[in-house]
Amino acid sequence: MRRLESHACFGGTQEVWAHDATSTACEMRFGVYLPPQVQAGPCPVLYFLSGLTCTEQNFIQKSGVQRYAAEHGLVIVSPDTSPRGDGVPDAEGDDIGLSASFYVDATQAPWSAQYRMHAYVVQELPALVEQHFPVTDARSIAGHSMGGHGALICALRHPGRYRSVSALAPICSASRGWGRKAFPAYLGDDPDAWREWDACDLLRGSHDRLSLLVDQGDADPFLAERLQPDLLQKACTAGGHTLDLHLRPGYDHGFYFVASFIGDHVAYHASALKA
Amino acid sequence: MRRLESHACFGGTQEVWAHDATSTACEMRFGVYLPPQVQAGPCPVLYFLSGLTCTEQNFIQKSGVQRYAAEHGLVIVSPDTSPRGDGVPDAEGDDIGLSASFYVDATQAPWSAQYRMHAYVVQELPALVEQHFPVTDARSIAGHSMGGHGALICALRHPGRYRSVSALAPICSASRGWGRKAFPAYLGDDPDAWREWDACDLLRGSHDRLSLLVDQGDADPFLAERLQPDLLQKACTAGGHTLDLHLRPGYDHGFYFVASFIGDHVAYHASALKA
Repeated sequence: MRRLESHACFGGTQEVWAHDATSTACEMRFGVYLPPQVQAGPCPVLYFLSGLTCTEQNFIQKSGVQRYAAEHGLVIVSPDTSPRGDGVPDAEGDDIGLSASFYVDATQAPWSAQYRMHAYVVQELPALVEQHFPVTDARSIAGHSMGGHGALICALRHPGRYRSVSALAPICSASRGWGRKAFPAYLGDDPDAWREWDACDLLRGSHDRLSLLVDQGDADPFLAERLQPDLLQKACTAGGHTLDLHLRPGYDHGFYFVASFIGDHVAYHASALKA
Repeated sequence: MRRLESHACFGGTQEVWAHDATSTACEMRFGVYLPPQVQAGPCPVLYFLSGLTCTEQNFIQKSGVQRYAAEHGLVIVSPDTSPRGDGVPDAEGDDIGLSASFYVDATQAPWSAQYRMHAYVVQELPALVEQHFPVTDARSIAGHSMGGHGALICALRHPGRYRSVSALAPICSASRGWGRKAFPAYLGDDPDAWREWDACDLLRGSHDRLSLLVDQGDADPFLAERLQPDLLQKACTAGGHTLDLHLRPGYDHGFYFVASFIGDHVAYHASALKA
């Protein structure tokens, strides 16, 4: 494991690390923010999954999350969005291939060898983080856009593993929305396979009752066709889940939106992680 | 004047505008954050000057300034760092030419035709802003690195024009530090000409007593050779100015440092602008 960056930030440290990952068979990078409270003892962790076209850098540079993490004493771990490097398969367009893993474990060639971001995010990365950093095993998860979808499916597929889950402008039903191209490529043509990785389908089938915090800008150009929060509302009603959905007037899909509301999400997770 | 971007952010709007500037004889871009308070009436303006290699984007994307501007009701105007476009002179290296105006009015060819960022920042841009946006004529100025130098010389050369001035990791004496290459190119070989644009020389010669707020990371790799806050301290003592210099343990030169302390600077300026 190699530390690539270390910057003092809001009394703590924003670091970037690289390591050879087994799940994705390549070097992976992730950001980790260590709040000042780690000086006094281990802190709980909020995992944050980013969206299409992002690396581990966008969220740590543009969201301002560190201020809130320092206020609440949370470690923030923000992985890259796909495998990277020579030989990693890619495709034309922004919504499949590099930076577009959709946080699934692909079953179809050529993706299946390395596009195993779900295993990476849920198992390998937390094991690494919990071994090397001053953290407890209390975990929560959040994400933006494709990463909001990622956070939802991580929580839904692994009941009890996360204390809380939230999303900013999530792709609510990837198989019906922004993942319509990626899902058949990664998972094959059988819609039954897609349902295991679609947040709305998982919500309808879940035995656990989940509480979700979601923020969504109402001026987001991707809202109706690609994000589909209406489907999330219906699935939560059908599955008996509690959805706290805030439709934010005038906000779009970018980091000015994320920065405006990430503080609410950190506070929400802090409350669950310290309960 | 053309609006290139508009994003809801912390209850206000982060915009980016382009216009044909007279001072620099090219199209110039600037960011303007309008806090929610402009709905109720005009707000005072904090000008923020960025450092080497930056455009108008870095500060508005990475500093998190909008949260504090929304809290205090300040408009934030953040210009680009040099003239841009076809035919604008440039040179090898990061510390002269594009993104490296040093906020002077160049007197030497080929720079003198367009590298007139001082006139742009002090006169042309405020006139434009005060004509087109809901602002008062109360102005303060701040900056980072080369922009910290810029803020200091703007305030020192135009007594009474700004209510307050502050800097994050400023180039304190450009002619002796990070401007040693740019100053002779822009201003010629006569050191007397440099003194009119060097913050420390201006502080020593100023009849007004200035109050300065400065933050500086003590792990900044440019501190001793290029930033030289020791020279600023001596010049303030010699000129009878009040310097509130915070040396921040462990902080480097980048935006994680800026983000950590910009809130203090916005609060400082808000207090002067609303007095």
